[in-house]
Amino acid sequence: MIEPGLFLAHWQGHRRLSARVLAAFPEDQLFTFAPAAPLRPFGELLWEIVGQTGYVLDGLGTGTWGEPRWERLPSTAPGVLRAAWEAQTARIGHEGARVPPSRWAAAQATGWGEMTAVMTALAALDNEIHHRGQGTIYLRLLGIAPPDFWERG
Amino acid sequence: MIEPGLFLAHWQGHRRLSARVLAAFPEDQLFTFAPAAPLRPFGELLWEIVGQTGYVLDGLGTGTWGEPRWERLPSTAPGVLRAAWEAQTARIGHEGARVPPSRWAAAQATGWGEMTAVMTALAALDNEIHHRGQGTIYLRLLGIAPPDFWERG
Repeated sequence: MIEPGLFLAHWQGHRRLSARVLAAFPEDQLFTFAPAAPLRPFGELLWEIVGQTGYVLDGLGTGTWGEPRWERLPSTAPGVLRAAWEAQTARIGHEGARVPPSRWAAAQATGWGEMTAVMTALAALDNEIHHRGQGTIYLRLLGIAPPDFWERG
Repeated sequence: MIEPGLFLAHWQGHRRLSARVLAAFPEDQLFTFAPAAPLRPFGELLWEIVGQTGYVLDGLGTGTWGEPRWERLPSTAPGVLRAAWEAQTARIGHEGARVPPSRWAAAQATGWGEMTAVMTALAALDNEIHHRGQGTIYLRLLGIAPPDFWERG
């Protein structure tokens, strides 16, 4: 009931919003600021999303999943994270469009259990929204107004 | 590519998680604690979700949308909010199952613009995940461990 193209456009809108929240973060706080233990800095949360989304894109593209595994903190350079984010957003665009239509609704043997392919993508998107919402509170605590939630263009 | 039943089950899982975050909140902080201006207390955020979700359920059920409108803060009694949350979660279950299958993917003239019915539900769910993520930071700032994000049963 959701066309793949519509879902991918929705996902891309969220990626753009997350990129804006990332851009709003002071570079010197991105990998250091966390308001209470054991919360992680926003840059670390975003690397988790990059790792998780990469796992989903690999599985969507190949139909083969394996165990989820990614490096926890590949870099604390803001520019490296921003570049990785942009490159992966582009991947969602061109690789997402090439996922075989039948695969989206087909059960997949993933490292998270058996689920349809689209539900793996929705799980990654849910986690992005969750951690980005946390990041907007970090911004407010730093005295910075976050981008509007409903602005996705 | 997402069956309505699968989407509704996913939505209900998020509702259960939000109910747990609500239950974890100290009653005397639910409508008072906000860590920085102009952030709203978590109870107020949840009333927004109740209002928005109610708008979506009315539209899904009738195919008629009108303008979104809801009371900003119907009550500051924690028990009233909890009861409203539970009643609305039950509504998603029984009314969601009765939405005509053809309506989910059909364009609707909503107060948020023209979009398919399922995208209105996804928008409400996205907003719930976003604000609940913010609420988990409030909990950490209050010294309370939030429920696990991945536990939805």
